[in-house]
Amino acid sequence: MSNQELVVLGQSDDAGACCPGLLTAPLDEGQAVELAKVFKALGDPVRLRLLSMIASRAGGEVCVCDLTPAFELSQPTISHHLKLLRQAGLIDCERRGTWVYYWLVPEMTDRLAGILTRPAGEPMPERTAPAGATS
Amino acid sequence: MSNQELVVLGQSDDAGACCPGLLTAPLDEGQAVELAKVFKALGDPVRLRLLSMIASRAGGEVCVCDLTPAFELSQPTISHHLKLLRQAGLIDCERRGTWVYYWLVPEMTDRLAGILTRPAGEPMPERTAPAGATS
Repeated sequence: MSNQELVVLGQSDDAGACCPGLLTAPLDEGQAVELAKVFKALGDPVRLRLLSMIASRAGGEVCVCDLTPAFELSQPTISHHLKLLRQAGLIDCERRGTWVYYWLVPEMTDRLAGILTRPAGEPMPERTAPAGATS
Repeated sequence: MSNQELVVLGQSDDAGACCPGLLTAPLDEGQAVELAKVFKALGDPVRLRLLSMIASRAGGEVCVCDLTPAFELSQPTISHHLKLLRQAGLIDCERRGTWVYYWLVPEMTDRLAGILTRPAGEPMPERTAPAGATS
């Protein structure tokens, strides 16, 4: 895969500037479009299960032949979900003989975690719902 | 909103067990279904921009009247997107007179960040793509 998504999500060369700042500043339209693609890839239960199976596998990679039996879905359907995860930059793969092997791209999950992490030393304002104000 | 999603995402009473472990163990189907709803809510550029506008607002809350002018969309459309973010547990709101005010639910973004964070002391295996092995 290209690193296009990674570049978009990590806009600066600074080591500390890992995130466009979902919680710290309004995203511009381009950032939002790119980031939405990654979250959309995560917005499906089968893809989340596939990602967790791949990410948690000891040794760091999984044969597609070990993923398919966990689902009551055809191999083409599983392959389609894997393709969407790969296009989002969350996993990568390599064909070896008959089978394709998949692994997590931890840089992408690190970036998403960073994007969703509150800035250090800047706690969100404490909110307490006023009594009777919400339905 | 109910706290149903928050309960599902944080299954245990342990203080340290904040996450179902997307990267550490295969998600079960129920966990994946609940988590996918939240990521799906994030999988849209307008909703991401709305969330970032709400989360980054000094004072911690935003009037819907200050959100709508940033988009070339009708107020009902904006309200629909806000409703999906609220149903996912990412924001909450309160009506005061004419306007509805929105704020981030930081517990949910904290949980997502935790879910996407690699376990401490367990670095992912380093992968180097074998030369010529990938197309």
